[in-house]
Amino acid sequence: MTPSRITIFGSGNLAWHLGQALFDAHYSISQVYSRNQANAEELAFQLGADAISSTEDFDDSCDVAIFAVSDNAIAELANKVNFSGQLVLHTSGSTSVEILKNNAQHYGVLYPLQTFSKFRPIEFRDIPLLIEANTPNNLVNLKGLASALSSKVIVADSYQRRQLHLSAVFANNFVNHMYTLAYELSKKTGLSFDILKPLIKETALKATLTDNPSIAQTGPAVRHNSEIIKKHIEMLCNQPEMQKIYTFVSESISKYHHTEHVS
Amino acid sequence: MTPSRITIFGSGNLAWHLGQALFDAHYSISQVYSRNQANAEELAFQLGADAISSTEDFDDSCDVAIFAVSDNAIAELANKVNFSGQLVLHTSGSTSVEILKNNAQHYGVLYPLQTFSKFRPIEFRDIPLLIEANTPNNLVNLKGLASALSSKVIVADSYQRRQLHLSAVFANNFVNHMYTLAYELSKKTGLSFDILKPLIKETALKATLTDNPSIAQTGPAVRHNSEIIKKHIEMLCNQPEMQKIYTFVSESISKYHHTEHVS
Repeated sequence: MTPSRITIFGSGNLAWHLGQALFDAHYSISQVYSRNQANAEELAFQLGADAISSTEDFDDSCDVAIFAVSDNAIAELANKVNFSGQLVLHTSGSTSVEILKNNAQHYGVLYPLQTFSKFRPIEFRDIPLLIEANTPNNLVNLKGLASALSSKVIVADSYQRRQLHLSAVFANNFVNHMYTLAYELSKKTGLSFDILKPLIKETALKATLTDNPSIAQTGPAVRHNSEIIKKHIEMLCNQPEMQKIYTFVSESISKYHHTEHVS
Repeated sequence: MTPSRITIFGSGNLAWHLGQALFDAHYSISQVYSRNQANAEELAFQLGADAISSTEDFDDSCDVAIFAVSDNAIAELANKVNFSGQLVLHTSGSTSVEILKNNAQHYGVLYPLQTFSKFRPIEFRDIPLLIEANTPNNLVNLKGLASALSSKVIVADSYQRRQLHLSAVFANNFVNHMYTLAYELSKKTGLSFDILKPLIKETALKATLTDNPSIAQTGPAVRHNSEIIKKHIEMLCNQPEMQKIYTFVSESISKYHHTEHVS
């Protein structure tokens, strides 16, 4: 089977980017489902597909059905659909592949390890796609599909995927929160957040040039410079939330480097 | 006064990059000081300067003396030098300009808001340089010098500079520690850290495209997805340090976005 006709469930950021990547790779998008018909229509229009907002309208002649919906919607939604032997995929980092087994015979996971914003274009070919399927045959088919979209296809089981999703929470969610706290602090100076942007870029670039980002660690905590740390903690006395994070992450940096990278 | 002959105290990462930038901007580097004569010679050789390792050998005919040394070494070192009216600068984010007043008549601060590694080339013109001086006249001279090195020269007083240095601890040091924890987690999968690199790059790029990075916040904490958060905390049961950071930063994200960006 070479999958050719694909139905997408979902109309969020990932559904948009994945839909576009499939379209660009010359897959035919059969249907786009969203609870909200207008949302389904907006994306379906982009992809030359039909829009549906009821699972009963699912056209079971498609070869692949992809659930690009929020984690807690996958099972409920998938259980409402009458599949007829197509490959059924979800796109979640933290959800086991087995969540699809009740209702589908052929199933798997296609998890893109990236952060998506609807209107920010992204080079899909560079996105690592973690794949898993319930049979070797389905894995071969899924690999074909994934390889048409990205040059970085990695077979990963549910444990590996879950663990990488947790890594991504640190590398994206928590990093972005650190940016947000830095922004809050910079705001108090009356100077623009732009001043921090070259540092943000260089910090990320340095990490991507190493096999282990701990090598690039700098600052008072890794130097055990208790005088500066004390001063910083005093400066944060009116922001107890940030003060706690400062203290806590500094301790963690200090401990981590003290124990020579054994976490 | 157009400063033309400069002496650099220090031979660390910043001294290297700043020295090179001054050299490239056609300033003449008079002397390089380091406690360690070999280190002084290595950098002095690059810059066509003389190497010294005793403050007594300071040639007071230079126009500018720059202390690119660690924060806690500035005062002690500067107090040993006999200045003769040149502009004396330090390069520290967290140190008041007044630390130089005991021994110098003309003094100021030239603080580059960036992370430096000795052998990683960096575009100095893009680095924000925060400047401050003890008199309007010295500020004019310092501005001339800084503008020859960077297109982003910002006049900032000691409070603003200290506050931005603290922001930089979040945007660089703490971000890098999040990368390190992500690396540790990814290691357990047996898969390469490379898988996380496109995410790291995109996360930073997104932040540099916004006026307020909180807009780009994603993940279970901002969605208040307690099921995933609970699962992640369980996954970290053997890493109490990371578990604490996970819990803590998630709480902070959740609170921050709950209170609509009022920190």
